[in-house]
Parts: sequence; C-alpha cells; structure tokens
Amino acid sequence: MRTYLDCYPCFLRQGLDAARRLGADQARQKLVLDKVLELLGHLELCSTPPQIGDQVHRLVRRLLGDGDPYRDFKEATTREALALYPRLSRLVAEAEERLETAVRLAIAGNILDAGTGPAGELWATVERVLSLPLPAGELDELREALGGTQGVLYLADNAGETVFDRLLIEALQVPVVYAVKAGPVLNDATVRDAQAAGLHRVARLLSTGSDAPGTILESCSEQFRAEYRGAKLVIAKGQANYETLSEEGPRLFFLLQVKCPVIARDLGVAVGGIVLRRGGRPGVPR
Amino acid sequence: MRTYLDCYPCFLRQGLDAARRLGADQARQKLVLDKVLELLGHLELCSTPPQIGDQVHRLVRRLLGDGDPYRDFKEATTREALALYPRLSRLVAEAEERLETAVRLAIAGNILDAGTGPAGELWATVERVLSLPLPAGELDELREALGGTQGVLYLADNAGETVFDRLLIEALQVPVVYAVKAGPVLNDATVRDAQAAGLHRVARLLSTGSDAPGTILESCSEQFRAEYRGAKLVIAKGQANYETLSEEGPRLFFLLQVKCPVIARDLGVAVGGIVLRRGGRPGVPR
Repeated sequence: MRTYLDCYPCFLRQGLDAARRLGADQARQKLVLDKVLELLGHLELCSTPPQIGDQVHRLVRRLLGDGDPYRDFKEATTREALALYPRLSRLVAEAEERLETAVRLAIAGNILDAGTGPAGELWATVERVLSLPLPAGELDELREALGGTQGVLYLADNAGETVFDRLLIEALQVPVVYAVKAGPVLNDATVRDAQAAGLHRVARLLSTGSDAPGTILESCSEQFRAEYRGAKLVIAKGQANYETLSEEGPRLFFLLQVKCPVIARDLGVAVGGIVLRRGGRPGVPR
Repeated sequence: MRTYLDCYPCFLRQGLDAARRLGADQARQKLVLDKVLELLGHLELCSTPPQIGDQVHRLVRRLLGDGDPYRDFKEATTREALALYPRLSRLVAEAEERLETAVRLAIAGNILDAGTGPAGELWATVERVLSLPLPAGELDELREALGGTQGVLYLADNAGETVFDRLLIEALQVPVVYAVKAGPVLNDATVRDAQAAGLHRVARLLSTGSDAPGTILESCSEQFRAEYRGAKLVIAKGQANYETLSEEGPRLFFLLQVKCPVIARDLGVAVGGIVLRRGGRPGVPR
C-alpha cells in the first residue's frame, strides 16, 4: 500500500511518542520533531508507510540512542494477555468452529498497539471481535489453504498480541515458523518478547533480520527471505504487514483490526472493523 | 495557552483538509503539505495554536486562492441547527433554570466543528450536554457577573453553533454585541453566517477585523479592540478563543466542548467533557 498524505501527521506523532518514551526532555522532543519535519519535507510518496516509519524510528534512534522505548509497555501487555490465556484457551476448546474462534482471537489481540488501555478493555475487545462479522468466503479459503500445506509462515506484529497468536497456532495443526523483528521498533515483538509469551513452545521462532515496522522484504535477512519465498501459506498480522505485503499474492492471509482511516479506505472496512483478507497481485490488491 | 508539540500533527491535518475542501488535486495537496512542513520546521513555541493555525490557513490561501473552503459545510450545519431551533427554544422556555439550560445549549452547539456528523448526532449531543456535570460555582459567578453588567461582548465560534448562541443571548436579558470573523477561516462564523442564523435579530453584529482562528487581539481592528477593552463581561466560545484568551482575566467566561487531548490536559477536563470556565490572569490560567 502506498503512503497517503494523511499518513504524515501520524509519522510526526510516532516520532514524538518514541522520543517521549525514551525520556527525552522538551528540547530534545522538539529536536526530534524538527528532524522528522525535515525528513517528511523530502519524501517521495512511492514508499509504503512502514518504509517511512522505519526512517522516522531510525532517526529517533540516531538522535536519542538505541533504547527500546516500548519495553515496559511490551512487558505489561504480554503479562495482561498471558493472564487471559487460560480463559481464551477454553473459548477455543469449547467452540463449535475452533479455527474461526482462534482466527477471531488472533485478530482481537491486534488491539494491543502502543497506546491501548488496560486488561479490562482487552477482554471487552475479545467479546467485540467474537461478535463482529467475518467474511465467511475468505475463512473457507484459509481453511482450504491450510488443508493443502505442510506448514505456515506466521508474521508476528505486537508483543502481547503474541499470546493470541499462540492460540491460533495451536489451532492450525501444522508446523509454524513464527517470524519476529530483529530489534525493537514500536511495540513489535522480538524473539525475547515472543519467548516471554511462550511462542517457542508452539512454533519455531525466526528473526526477519530487520527492525523496520511491517515486513520490508529488501531489509530482511537472506535466511528469512528464503523461508518467505518457500512458504506455501503466510499468515500476516496487523496493519504494517498489510501495508508492506498487500500485493504479494494469494499465498498471504492478513489478519488485523482497522485502526486508521487511510487503511479503512484502502480495505473498504470501517475503523474499528476486523479483517481477514487474502493477498492480491501487484497493482491489483484484493 | 502555548502551543504544544502535540499540536503539530493537527496543523498538518488542518492544512490538508483546507486544501482538499478547495478542490486541490493530489499534487497541490502535496505542495500545501510540504509548505506546512517547512513552516512548522521554523516555528518557535511561544505562539498560541491559533496563531500558528492562522499562518497555516494564510499559506493555503496564498497557494490555492482566496476561497471559502467550508462554505457548504457552514451552510449545511446552519440549516441543521435552525431546524432544531423551535425545539431548543421550548427546552429553554420550559426549563426550571433557564440560564443554565441556555448555557448548556450554547456549549452543545460547540460540537459543530468542521468534521462532525449529521443532525441526528446533533440532537444526541444536546441530550448528552444537558446531562453532563457543569461546575455550579462558575455558573453562579456568571449569573452574578450578568447581574452587574449593562451588556455582554459575545465572541462567536463556528457557523451553525451561532443558532445555539442565539438561544443563550435570548436568555441573557442584556444587550449583546456578537463578534464574528472578518473573513472565512475553518468553519468559523462570519457576518454572513451569523445573519443566516438570525443573530442580527438578537444582537449587534461586529466583525473582529481578523480572519485568524480564535481571537488574536493584535490582528483585530481598532474598533473591535476598543469594544473588547470596554466590555465588563465577555463570553467566549470554543477551543480557539480559550487558546488565545485564557489568561485575559476574570471578565471572560469560556464555554466549550473539549475536543483534543492537549486542551483536555490544560483544562483538567477529559476529551468529550463540557467546560464553563472563568478566565485567569497572565501566567495564572484558571
């Protein structure tokens, strides 16, 4: 998905938020903001939003150092999600349609973006997502694709959301490679975050080799790219993976919640809606 | 109120929105955005948000011409509000506390900012604002101030909201000067918009002499400033008037709905909350 002009205010907000989480004082926050403004002033719109987001986060790291601004947030959301795990697991076990319930929970977990509320709201999200409409056709296609594959490459999104991914992975009944970021960016899961959520017990963990948001293939390691090229079925979580891979073909299934008006327009789904969408071809996103 | 770093994304959004409403194509929208980025890159933070907003809107006018981007929106919201006028007028007439009800309705009308929904939501806002808590102390102070004055200077905000102001003006029972913008900016009311809402029947209309958002005194006409200096009691509507005049002393009473997190923090009232606030002294906003 290309970058829209509406994304610009969001890049500013992301830079400012990251600077604050790194403890920058007012003067250094202003410095970050001025540099992001300069960066945005020299942009071409052919990049995807995560490619520009990557530049913004690199800039923040260059100016303020190589910390993990969202460490506390990631640990807290992982704890919150783990506390729900037994209850969520029962939901799947008792469901008539286990795969559908597990898909819905994986989408529900996508609410755990930097800036979401406490665990009380997390359970409310679970209940909301269980009741929202999900396209039956694409669920059938996913089921069919699962039947014809020896394994799944699963592209993770946020820490904490990992716990919800675990439930879906347990329901898939095929071997899964769970791909996470090589280093901290936003509240995206790294190997450490995935281990804290117990993902190493249900999948083989793999670093993408990149610390950019989403999956920017040219910034990933050769090892990851080989795994990606060889995968018959890819499950990709969250907006940033959709933004970077939406035209990579029907091997991909995107699971996400719609959190911004730009993606809402691109997908034809309202903000707050849930999405299970099969990938399209270059120039012909589905 | 000073400008916070959190205001920067909003300035970008305002520039983009104004460009689109003027019918600018993608290339000209990008030009506007790039120029706003350049402007923001050279800002000092001692200005109030409306002073910077003024620069953004001037820039859009310079690049795209002197239109009235919000003309259709202003006419539609004025029509919607006028359709409710008889029902609102009955609400005040039948109220036990007429002044309080009229104050609440004037605050309810402040929802009519560029980007709000249709009339159905407008009535829902009226009902919500009638039920929210309003500080009794400041309402008593306003009542007392009204008892000791020969007239009120009323600083308008948006078109359509004007109809709700009319109800409060009818309840004030003292002569009112209703000050509006000299030219189009956002969906702020001009003399033409105020006349369309019938304000000339209940107040003397006065142009501030400025087309900046809020009330930036140094950009107003000498005639308006004389009126302002001489006023014993000033009622100021909306966020932008609060942002520009919050430290102008206890002659001022601000009526508004809180629509952004920055103002929410400044006022200590949650987003979505309603505000009746007496003005503070320089350096000591109340």
